[in-house]
Amino acid sequence: MDRHDLHHLPKSHMAFQSSPDTLDIRLRTTRGSVRRVQLVHGDPFHWKRQNDTRSWAGLDSYTEMDLENRTRAFDYWFARIRVPSRRVKYAFLLEGRWLFGARLLLDAVRDPGQLANLDNLFNYPYLLEADRYQAPEWVESTVWYSIFPDRFHQSGTSGLDPSRPARNDRFFGGDLKGIEEKLDYIADELGCNGLYLNPVFESPSAHKYDVTDYFRIDPRFGDEASLRRLVKKAHAKGVRVMLDAVFNHVSYRHPFFQDVLEKGAQSPYYDAFHLHEDFDAEAVRRKFEAKERFRPPYAAFAFSPRMPKVNTEHPLMREYLLEVATYWIETADIDGWRLDVGNEVSHDFWREFRKRVKAAKPDAYILGENWDYAFPWLQGDQHDGTMQYDFLFAVHALLAPEKAPFRLDTEGFRDFVVDHCALYPRPVHVNLYNLLDSHDTQRIARVLDNQTEKLEIAYALLFALPGTPSIYYGGEIGLDGGKDPDNRRAMDWQGEQSDKRLFETLKHLIRIYREEADFRRAHLEWLQASDGVLAFRKGDLLFLYNVSQTPGTVQLGEALGQASDLLTGRSVNLKTRMRLPGFTFRIYRFKD
Amino acid sequence: MDRHDLHHLPKSHMAFQSSPDTLDIRLRTTRGSVRRVQLVHGDPFHWKRQNDTRSWAGLDSYTEMDLENRTRAFDYWFARIRVPSRRVKYAFLLEGRWLFGARLLLDAVRDPGQLANLDNLFNYPYLLEADRYQAPEWVESTVWYSIFPDRFHQSGTSGLDPSRPARNDRFFGGDLKGIEEKLDYIADELGCNGLYLNPVFESPSAHKYDVTDYFRIDPRFGDEASLRRLVKKAHAKGVRVMLDAVFNHVSYRHPFFQDVLEKGAQSPYYDAFHLHEDFDAEAVRRKFEAKERFRPPYAAFAFSPRMPKVNTEHPLMREYLLEVATYWIETADIDGWRLDVGNEVSHDFWREFRKRVKAAKPDAYILGENWDYAFPWLQGDQHDGTMQYDFLFAVHALLAPEKAPFRLDTEGFRDFVVDHCALYPRPVHVNLYNLLDSHDTQRIARVLDNQTEKLEIAYALLFALPGTPSIYYGGEIGLDGGKDPDNRRAMDWQGEQSDKRLFETLKHLIRIYREEADFRRAHLEWLQASDGVLAFRKGDLLFLYNVSQTPGTVQLGEALGQASDLLTGRSVNLKTRMRLPGFTFRIYRFKD
Repeated sequence: MDRHDLHHLPKSHMAFQSSPDTLDIRLRTTRGSVRRVQLVHGDPFHWKRQNDTRSWAGLDSYTEMDLENRTRAFDYWFARIRVPSRRVKYAFLLEGRWLFGARLLLDAVRDPGQLANLDNLFNYPYLLEADRYQAPEWVESTVWYSIFPDRFHQSGTSGLDPSRPARNDRFFGGDLKGIEEKLDYIADELGCNGLYLNPVFESPSAHKYDVTDYFRIDPRFGDEASLRRLVKKAHAKGVRVMLDAVFNHVSYRHPFFQDVLEKGAQSPYYDAFHLHEDFDAEAVRRKFEAKERFRPPYAAFAFSPRMPKVNTEHPLMREYLLEVATYWIETADIDGWRLDVGNEVSHDFWREFRKRVKAAKPDAYILGENWDYAFPWLQGDQHDGTMQYDFLFAVHALLAPEKAPFRLDTEGFRDFVVDHCALYPRPVHVNLYNLLDSHDTQRIARVLDNQTEKLEIAYALLFALPGTPSIYYGGEIGLDGGKDPDNRRAMDWQGEQSDKRLFETLKHLIRIYREEADFRRAHLEWLQASDGVLAFRKGDLLFLYNVSQTPGTVQLGEALGQASDLLTGRSVNLKTRMRLPGFTFRIYRFKD
Repeated sequence: MDRHDLHHLPKSHMAFQSSPDTLDIRLRTTRGSVRRVQLVHGDPFHWKRQNDTRSWAGLDSYTEMDLENRTRAFDYWFARIRVPSRRVKYAFLLEGRWLFGARLLLDAVRDPGQLANLDNLFNYPYLLEADRYQAPEWVESTVWYSIFPDRFHQSGTSGLDPSRPARNDRFFGGDLKGIEEKLDYIADELGCNGLYLNPVFESPSAHKYDVTDYFRIDPRFGDEASLRRLVKKAHAKGVRVMLDAVFNHVSYRHPFFQDVLEKGAQSPYYDAFHLHEDFDAEAVRRKFEAKERFRPPYAAFAFSPRMPKVNTEHPLMREYLLEVATYWIETADIDGWRLDVGNEVSHDFWREFRKRVKAAKPDAYILGENWDYAFPWLQGDQHDGTMQYDFLFAVHALLAPEKAPFRLDTEGFRDFVVDHCALYPRPVHVNLYNLLDSHDTQRIARVLDNQTEKLEIAYALLFALPGTPSIYYGGEIGLDGGKDPDNRRAMDWQGEQSDKRLFETLKHLIRIYREEADFRRAHLEWLQASDGVLAFRKGDLLFLYNVSQTPGTVQLGEALGQASDLLTGRSVNLKTRMRLPGFTFRIYRFKD
């Protein structure tokens, strides 16, 4: 047994409290290097000290670990164990012989005393409720509908003009009342039960990521009453409402920053920003008003002078933002915050933010924007979920390899998904936010060349991958659009260009996702990833995808018998081998 | 290039902010699988987009990674990079060809566009001062002297009786004034500049880990004035004083727990403990007073009824403990807290604890007891350091393989140390607390059969390993003692049994440690770990150890030239091969 084939990190995404008295443990091994893993575990103060080399009875408890999944490089092993006394030490017994502990890999046959050696065990010191990750229960069964408010619907009209080119300084007239008028469409017709709005507070731009007043709804969108009414009507339909919190930066025009530009070091907000040593207020104002392009002498979002980064540790700024967070919960009863640039704001700020938000509304959802490895924010003290761009990239790479940042074939896609899933504990994974596109990316219709069958597969994959699915407004009808700002075109209400087949498919997917609890499981049991076919199980559901043009063959390995096709309602017989036409997918329930 | 040979985890101990604008990055590879690593890094909003396949000029910055160390299983690569804009994305370019990024391992020769692919980069989103790990500056140059107060010295006497068997319900009469009387010995004679006292607050036991009043010095030890005087005199000698905070549990006799036993659910402290469903106050009191052994119907330290675990989330309990934390800083000007069972108390509590303590004294040291992987507590928000039992085990395993929990030969020792060091960022590592023994383990003299030459090597290793060295009272004279309570024998002031050679050696080690900044570096550059010999460099210092009985040969590889032996002051010529007698060590400075 080689040490370099084994990987475990205690008290991490690989050892995670999954309930008041359970712990989820993962081990990663080089593929094929280990054929069996038993987790040896117990309370360190109640560890049986004897070491009977014949029965291995010296150890407290054994749990057989499941081979959770394999990639071409790795095997992942998983076990969920009960920890009645809340304290647990553990080690991995490989093939009944090799003890992989916190300090050494040892041959337990040659040195059986090692099985009772408490000093070579991994430790999860205490399962404490205070630190346990817990997200609101409603999140995992939510299907999100994401709206860029200026471009969705203008109240009292028949709709905006989808053919008008989108620009970030061009206002289309969408408003909150317009969204309210379309709640029937979103909730009843389409079936979504979560609404995520891009920023709605006062701001000079159309995207409103440069806020000038966080306590005021942008007058183009309406007022406080409009938001309250929208939330109230949404709630009446069982729809939750999430707003966008831009707490990484403010608008150049925000009064705090203007105060600094005017008063310099005399301003109480002087330290509420990250000004560089060469900061010169006069020069900044001159260049900004002259619309020059310049690298700002202060920290900013990207290097944009329009969006000075705030210092969330400054008492006035901190309190201001924290008040915003609770104000809209208390005033409009919103259900969550999506945190713009969530990973560039301090952990310390998010910890206090969480306490305030949860005190105001215990089941509010806190969703961080984070395009990368997000576990450091998802340990119970900060965010409930993050936007899972990894799956966006994976689906693009599978279905549009020429356009995506990298290419994945079916096997590569499976490996990508398996490796990615292993970076997140299962209880966390189901609360992440899945997306195929957003106001920051090309629209999926553009990526997939408006091909309905590919779009259907893309959504059917997104819905099945761990996390909650979302639809970027218009995605359900195949709305087209390239990169920002073209991805922010107006919604097409006339429906002349709209893809009705895609809409129907999405309606079905949404219904199934909300009805079938197994759909929402974190764990994918892979059956096939070859010959253009992807096949996996989640509980009693079977997911099949042919991502190639040519008919494919699914090799189930075992006949699963009678099943129902959840999209058509038809009954089918699941045989060991099944044919699947090009660019199609199936979702079956094979037990009752 | 095989994916299973590569390991990196972003935003972890492998990617750590080491100063306001630097990041330390580590990569682990299977030994020999990769011969060269370049770190490709830059600001994601200023990434050069062109990709020139001939010069690789498409990427922002390249930094050659150092092969930090090797074990038989792994190679560890290290780079410290500057991050002027505080944002950085990065990937590893292996052997000028393979790009190991956040999402995929790719052949950048076959697909050169990947070098400009921002979506396959690891991300350290923002280097924020608010989250940066910072420990007090004085810590890393501290040599600690650790005292079990009842057993050190009784003021006004010639000393306690070291031949009297130690028991935890037997009081020897040591007191704070007694420690004060011995400050000359500790600071001037021995040279230590940190004092760590086991608990001193009111408690029925001799060890005082079951506290009844945290606001009162145990009357056997003195009073508040005694502590104040001790700290003041210590400070006058440049010695810092750290007390023991027992915040995981209280004494069964603590008034809060007694209140619960009396009033049950009517007590305001009822939820300040973790009572089980079958909690029966009457039965508990009866069994306890009858000195029965029983498993308590409440969470406790280990399963000890004497030490009910507290609920640090209960408002009264939390505030009580936090007030204790600042009270003794404000009242007696202490310099730090050692946190008993630091890993079983909630992260949430420690975060608030840190804020309160640092507000009261910004350069107070917070040291967690933690026998295992401690990085989750050492990310800037909780502890400054932890007790590094790993090195205790390693030294025991090397020098007393028959008695230690496992055996290590020289190569095994090197691998153990290298693997362990890679789990801690360098800026953190120098603030951990190294020990060979404690009130919880056998004394090192017992472990090493009172062999002076082995004890010298043990200390000389401990001092050189990353972290601050400590001496458990009497360790400097080779005080003997088996497991608890025998490891708590009285200090031997008569000195008849004392090991004077060991004492002299330790004095030298302490002096050198405090004088030579290189001694305190985190990074060990290994030169040899074979044939009973260990050899490594730290900056301009060379450390040689022969841990076997027979003379050994050190293979330096290159002649380092003139050097001074820091223990003897003699000048020597460091040749490529050097002889080292059995059980000896040398510390040389080879530059000026």
